[in-house]
Amino acid sequence: MGKGRLEAFSDGVFAVIITIMVLELKVPQGSDLAALRPVLPVFLSYLLSFVFVGIYWNNHHHMLHAVHRVNGFVLWANLHLLFWLSLVPFITAWMGENHRQTVPVALYGLVLFMAGTAYYILERGLIALHGKESPLALAVGTDFKGILSVALYTAAVALAFVNTWISIALYICVAVMWFIPDRRIEKAISE
Amino acid sequence: MGKGRLEAFSDGVFAVIITIMVLELKVPQGSDLAALRPVLPVFLSYLLSFVFVGIYWNNHHHMLHAVHRVNGFVLWANLHLLFWLSLVPFITAWMGENHRQTVPVALYGLVLFMAGTAYYILERGLIALHGKESPLALAVGTDFKGILSVALYTAAVALAFVNTWISIALYICVAVMWFIPDRRIEKAISE
Amino acid sequence: MGKGRLEAFSDGVFAVIITIMVLELKVPQGSDLAALRPVLPVFLSYLLSFVFVGIYWNNHHHMLHAVHRVNGFVLWANLHLLFWLSLVPFITAWMGENHRQTVPVALYGLVLFMAGTAYYILERGLIALHGKESPLALAVGTDFKGILSVALYTAAVALAFVNTWISIALYICVAVMWFIPDRRIEKAISE
Amino acid sequence: MGKGRLEAFSDGVFAVIITIMVLELKVPQGSDLAALRPVLPVFLSYLLSFVFVGIYWNNHHHMLHAVHRVNGFVLWANLHLLFWLSLVPFITAWMGENHRQTVPVALYGLVLFMAGTAYYILERGLIALHGKESPLALAVGTDFKGILSVALYTAAVALAFVNTWISIALYICVAVMWFIPDRRIEKAISE
Repeated sequence: MGKGRLEAFSDGVFAVIITIMVLELKVPQGSDLAALRPVLPVFLSYLLSFVFVGIYWNNHHHMLHAVHRVNGFVLWANLHLLFWLSLVPFITAWMGENHRQTVPVALYGLVLFMAGTAYYILERGLIALHGKESPLALAVGTDFKGILSVALYTAAVALAFVNTWISIALYICVAVMWFIPDRRIEKAISE
Repeated sequence: MGKGRLEAFSDGVFAVIITIMVLELKVPQGSDLAALRPVLPVFLSYLLSFVFVGIYWNNHHHMLHAVHRVNGFVLWANLHLLFWLSLVPFITAWMGENHRQTVPVALYGLVLFMAGTAYYILERGLIALHGKESPLALAVGTDFKGILSVALYTAAVALAFVNTWISIALYICVAVMWFIPDRRIEKAISE
Repeated sequence: MGKGRLEAFSDGVFAVIITIMVLELKVPQGSDLAALRPVLPVFLSYLLSFVFVGIYWNNHHHMLHAVHRVNGFVLWANLHLLFWLSLVPFITAWMGENHRQTVPVALYGLVLFMAGTAYYILERGLIALHGKESPLALAVGTDFKGILSVALYTAAVALAFVNTWISIALYICVAVMWFIPDRRIEKAISE
Repeated sequence: MGKGRLEAFSDGVFAVIITIMVLELKVPQGSDLAALRPVLPVFLSYLLSFVFVGIYWNNHHHMLHAVHRVNGFVLWANLHLLFWLSLVPFITAWMGENHRQTVPVALYGLVLFMAGTAYYILERGLIALHGKESPLALAVGTDFKGILSVALYTAAVALAFVNTWISIALYICVAVMWFIPDRRIEKAISE
């Protein structure tokens, strides 16, 4: 099977997820700067989630670029990833309104943890399909960054019960770490 | 007529349907685990519907992959399928909030029944266009799984008047049955 | 300029319009059949508008299929059409909740009138670009059906001040008239 | 890297942004013309923002049409542009409801300013990738119109503290100025 429609459908879902998040930014009642204050934390969690979804789209783009075909397992592994990403608008809004509360901040990390795990499963599925000598397999290797991210999400979920600011700092760390698209794959392809 | 834009438009509609469903997950008022409890049944119906729409996308993908062209009838049969699927977010939210009530659970089955029937009509339209000896026709055969699903939806609608849990169990059965993409077509193509 | 991205962007907008309309179907408060009754007129206007947007997508598909390139004027004529179609979800919800009131029913016709006119302008722009001997120009001719539709919308707007059911009947008439995709173009291409 | 998926993803985001804006047009409570009056300013800001997003899509279309490949920087510069455009529905609704208030009107200009700046960064990134002798670089030149727009947005933000109508007039001026797609690129390509 070709990868064309998988990419088209995923692009559609990514585009809708990244855009409907902004619907959670409720129009303020007042019309002065003070009216914007309650919107600010929701806006900042929107910004963080926009970067996360952008990172996933970027990495998804690079990964699919490096492969040639998909199978039934990959289709479902991809839907599994999109499922967890589709929860991002919900959990972003909840965390944005309750950024000092343990449960919303921990749950945000849990959704990222599940998305990170789902991405890893999709990656392994694509590598299994293309072989250990494929450009993707060589480029990704053991995927240290992917495993580190999932470990940091786990830590962030646990530390939300200590102080939610630690968790939020960890989320930002992971985002910064991934900000630069996966140069390993980019390099391996261009060689 | 080529099938390119039909696929692109359908991918767009599938992507929007599967993603806007999550808008029905209302952000909880509180910020503890107890605040999540009323969201749980809505979340579970979202999960079920996500799998259903994912199944339809998967099967749609396989079916269109096996054909070469479309005509006016196919365009409308496809829109007819998308119409019933577009009702899934509405009925998912209603069932999620009333999962022990006969009418919402039965109506959920009715929408699935109509979508299943619409898919069957689209399938027959494509087979009529490509001939009884086409790869699609040979792969699908009498479409036992499609007809069985529609029969199970009918049973689920009726049994919702006895006990809604029976209906929900039947919906899950159908989802599991279709979880694996249509290997018949995949096999027929790769042969 | 090629027509690829114009088609992709239009497909995206069509897909979003046709799907977000269903967000206006508010989840009923109750859980019995009586709770569905107030949803029924909104559902029926949703069905009517789904068919209208489907018709526009179908005709847009056929028309773009028959041409080879676009220019700046066509890009804006296309956006102009999409603008009026983007108002369909709003006016559909308003008419659905007030189907016996003059103003919402007349305004529904006005939006259709503007969309029909915008479609006509887009068609003329494409014909001007491809010449009077192009397959599109020969297939469309004077576009009797397009002009008749716009005339019927005008009548429907005026007659909404007499009785809204007449207007609604006219809308259904136009939908039925266009239900069959534009066979003239389809025929001209296949010849 | 090819530009295909960047275009597809951007088209998806543009399509969702331009269409969900209409969700901010709340269905009026009443059913007469008077009920529409409070919707009118929201409608007019919707119209203005539709034109702005349409202009960005048009220019984005032209710019990407003139280039052949993208890199990691361009991917992020593009996401950066989409981020600011994704705030347009929010700020459009707020300005629509408070078009005589300084803060919403100034903030509308700020979002346009950031989007204009992001577009400029994306343009410079693409030119850096393709070289100073590339068709894009020659067509764009110093991008006088882009720089003028950003200057006018700055003026509009400042003048909102004097009179919001001046700012709104400036927004309309910029929209009119860009209404005609970037003929410089179109001309350079066709030569």
